[in-house]
Amino acid sequence: MMREVFPLNRWWVAGFSWELTDKPLGRTFLNRPLVLFRTPDGAVAALEDRCCHKELPLSMGAVEARGLRCGYHGLLFNHAGGCIEVPGQPAVPARARVRAYPLREQDQILWVWIGATPESQPQDEPPRYAFHADPRYTFGGDCYHYDAPWQLIHDNLLDLSHLAYVHLKTIGGNPGAHMNAQLTTTSSHETVRVVRRMPDSEPPPTYTAAWPFPGRIDRWQEVNFRVSHCEIWTGAMDAGSGSFDDPERAGFHMRGFHGVTPETTDSAHYFWTVATNPHPDRQDITPLVVGQTALTFAEDQVVIQAQWQNQRRFPGRAQVYIPIDDGPTRARRLIDALLTPQQPP
Amino acid sequence: MMREVFPLNRWWVAGFSWELTDKPLGRTFLNRPLVLFRTPDGAVAALEDRCCHKELPLSMGAVEARGLRCGYHGLLFNHAGGCIEVPGQPAVPARARVRAYPLREQDQILWVWIGATPESQPQDEPPRYAFHADPRYTFGGDCYHYDAPWQLIHDNLLDLSHLAYVHLKTIGGNPGAHMNAQLTTTSSHETVRVVRRMPDSEPPPTYTAAWPFPGRIDRWQEVNFRVSHCEIWTGAMDAGSGSFDDPERAGFHMRGFHGVTPETTDSAHYFWTVATNPHPDRQDITPLVVGQTALTFAEDQVVIQAQWQNQRRFPGRAQVYIPIDDGPTRARRLIDALLTPQQPP
Amino acid sequence: MMREVFPLNRWWVAGFSWELTDKPLGRTFLNRPLVLFRTPDGAVAALEDRCCHKELPLSMGAVEARGLRCGYHGLLFNHAGGCIEVPGQPAVPARARVRAYPLREQDQILWVWIGATPESQPQDEPPRYAFHADPRYTFGGDCYHYDAPWQLIHDNLLDLSHLAYVHLKTIGGNPGAHMNAQLTTTSSHETVRVVRRMPDSEPPPTYTAAWPFPGRIDRWQEVNFRVSHCEIWTGAMDAGSGSFDDPERAGFHMRGFHGVTPETTDSAHYFWTVATNPHPDRQDITPLVVGQTALTFAEDQVVIQAQWQNQRRFPGRAQVYIPIDDGPTRARRLIDALLTPQQPP
Repeated sequence: MMREVFPLNRWWVAGFSWELTDKPLGRTFLNRPLVLFRTPDGAVAALEDRCCHKELPLSMGAVEARGLRCGYHGLLFNHAGGCIEVPGQPAVPARARVRAYPLREQDQILWVWIGATPESQPQDEPPRYAFHADPRYTFGGDCYHYDAPWQLIHDNLLDLSHLAYVHLKTIGGNPGAHMNAQLTTTSSHETVRVVRRMPDSEPPPTYTAAWPFPGRIDRWQEVNFRVSHCEIWTGAMDAGSGSFDDPERAGFHMRGFHGVTPETTDSAHYFWTVATNPHPDRQDITPLVVGQTALTFAEDQVVIQAQWQNQRRFPGRAQVYIPIDDGPTRARRLIDALLTPQQPP
Repeated sequence: MMREVFPLNRWWVAGFSWELTDKPLGRTFLNRPLVLFRTPDGAVAALEDRCCHKELPLSMGAVEARGLRCGYHGLLFNHAGGCIEVPGQPAVPARARVRAYPLREQDQILWVWIGATPESQPQDEPPRYAFHADPRYTFGGDCYHYDAPWQLIHDNLLDLSHLAYVHLKTIGGNPGAHMNAQLTTTSSHETVRVVRRMPDSEPPPTYTAAWPFPGRIDRWQEVNFRVSHCEIWTGAMDAGSGSFDDPERAGFHMRGFHGVTPETTDSAHYFWTVATNPHPDRQDITPLVVGQTALTFAEDQVVIQAQWQNQRRFPGRAQVYIPIDDGPTRARRLIDALLTPQQPP
Repeated sequence: MMREVFPLNRWWVAGFSWELTDKPLGRTFLNRPLVLFRTPDGAVAALEDRCCHKELPLSMGAVEARGLRCGYHGLLFNHAGGCIEVPGQPAVPARARVRAYPLREQDQILWVWIGATPESQPQDEPPRYAFHADPRYTFGGDCYHYDAPWQLIHDNLLDLSHLAYVHLKTIGGNPGAHMNAQLTTTSSHETVRVVRRMPDSEPPPTYTAAWPFPGRIDRWQEVNFRVSHCEIWTGAMDAGSGSFDDPERAGFHMRGFHGVTPETTDSAHYFWTVATNPHPDRQDITPLVVGQTALTFAEDQVVIQAQWQNQRRFPGRAQVYIPIDDGPTRARRLIDALLTPQQPP
């Protein structure tokens, strides 16, 4: 069996609901160029982005009530990829169809299921994401394109010690606190969890702007890696005012959703949102939190893309391992195991 | 014998007369980088675009009365490619020459003869093109560069059903009329002819702007493919006012010249002109017809380049054939036959 | 033994003193990406431009008193490439180090020693360059990046006959004088010397602007090639006023330093300065001389990059040799000999 390059037969993040308007959207996932579209009745679909006639991208076509029409000679395809009209001739050739991919829309996230073969079909539904619908929270987000392999983004998310050096202006700075945080890493078959705690620390700039902390804070960072995405709960409460282990702990929360979907082996889509709980006595600072998060993630993008360019300048060189690499290393081993062909029983 | 990539030993369009001023013009044809120039006496020539000394493009040089002088060390080459002066030394080395290609200027079109070997020479002259010199017609045109293989441009010209979806704003729109046009395709050893007729149809925007049609029109499109170029006669007369088969039929005419010359296997030059017969009662609308044609061909360029990019994203995939592909398919077979080495008798 | 691509175990120009401020400077030499930096005490160093942890370029990091700190996770490296701090952990792994390259700063030139192996070390010091410290002279310069192989730049410097055609506006023009100059070429194991003399010639525009020549001039060009750089002494005196052979000859002098360091096989750094002796009766024209030299060298850059692009369009083609190629040809043979592995005795 050939070793796969990406984990297949699973749901990947394809976009956000608000990205899919009355125009088709071309986007490549796992080396497969797809077109996403939404018909006026609201139904969404994902097809191979190639008309089966002359191969124009269907993403250059037009959405109609019955489906997506090619912009070259007008062939019309329905949600299942079948061609249902060839202008100028009464019949449609039997071979006139394109591959369809299961697409789901849930909690304002679009999920696409990439199967190993056209026959393979999902046996489950994509995961829910509660904080896009929680009335205590407001959120915003964006889609960033990376000229770097997808796993470098997860490496970065699973080792937040980089905040000390990369994100001085927003959520970082104060190297000592970050590099010496209490760190716990656990993992299972398809998850890695990294918890970092910084008790009695200085609030960083974004925190001070968002929440009326009178002094020092107990701060947490909880990263939950799930192959297709990470959920990252960060936040802080007044120092000594509660327990890190209390799931209902008060204070300032930033709930981050991080969908990371490979585009090619060398590029990726990074779909992120951040949800926050506005303080009742303050003006809603969600736009500020989202804006600073956007800047923060743009800093990551600069670093990770430069890292990848440099890895290509120095091919085949080993990296020196240090203890903060525990989380990223577990996630990489987990992915490797998913890619290793299983012996048939 | 090695299979050729392009049809050789024939005339190809190299440019228009007005492009060749007092500066040399570098342009690649069939993978061969050439420089075209015109000396003050009006004589034109085409040489390999490489000084035989240090290999600077001769297209960076300067035209003089006796020929083209290299911009690095001043070697001077005549119209036949011979070096006739090496500054700073009395004699010219015998090996100092560059390959020359036969170049003709006729009806404001420059034709270059690309032979399989430096020894092969043309046995005929390039074809005439009457509508650049017909007093009833005025014309304009341009040269477009395509990042796509040349045959995709001919595919497009030989199947004008795409007007319905690609050129809605100018000469297209009204899908039903275009896709259901009467279609006749004929071919011979080196020609393909596609005739489409749309009797009793609505005039499209460009036609209405150019000619005072009182109502519906009888419209024709006649495409004549000639390997190196297409001649496309389109136009219309008042519905029912004459015969499609009358070569002297009245009405509005657009006579298109379409020289398509491969640059490389993946790129091409598209030299086009459109000639029209201004209506005696109207202001000359030639600039409008040429302007709208330029927009129309820019739309084709977007589609064809996207098609080619997409064909490269999906390598090795078969296309579904439909009846409107008859003309392009015949032209491709004809080219294939030209490229197949003939058995010696 | 494998044939080397570049001459190794020698000093190459890495930059100028004024380029190295409080920020690290990433630059690739001989296919080796390096970072140069200067600590606040003035000490300079060159390291491999790759953090040994996650491979971010160290040139994206920050200079501190003790060395250079990586911008991703904060590892700190000293001038010798040793990691002396890993934030967040007490010990530094033994393998945490990057390769250092000897770097010297002398006469405002930075010289880097590129050894064949990490163990090889310089046995000598880089050459002095007197005219950066001569009180009779003032100078300026710049660093140009070339998308062309380094030896094409030396070819150009060793054959100044190109001034006649490339530099008409500054130091050239007057083709007859340049192409028919008296030419003497000599060479030794690691040097080539080309002397051109143009007695009783017209002063070119830059000369007239810089010096009050009353009429015709005796002009000289002396090119001294030294593998890593050329020294080019050009200038002129009033015609008949002195001897070309007098080392203390009066007149207008332009002393050029030309460091040419390969970046990759297809690109190079060109570090140049020009020093001149201002005329006592005139306003200092050094800025004018440096500015015109900058324009002149930009003309060379256009020509040489076009030459290289064209050599790639016509791969494997032989060049026609003419006598002015003597100097460049000797330099190329000299380099070839340096690259040929020597038999052990």
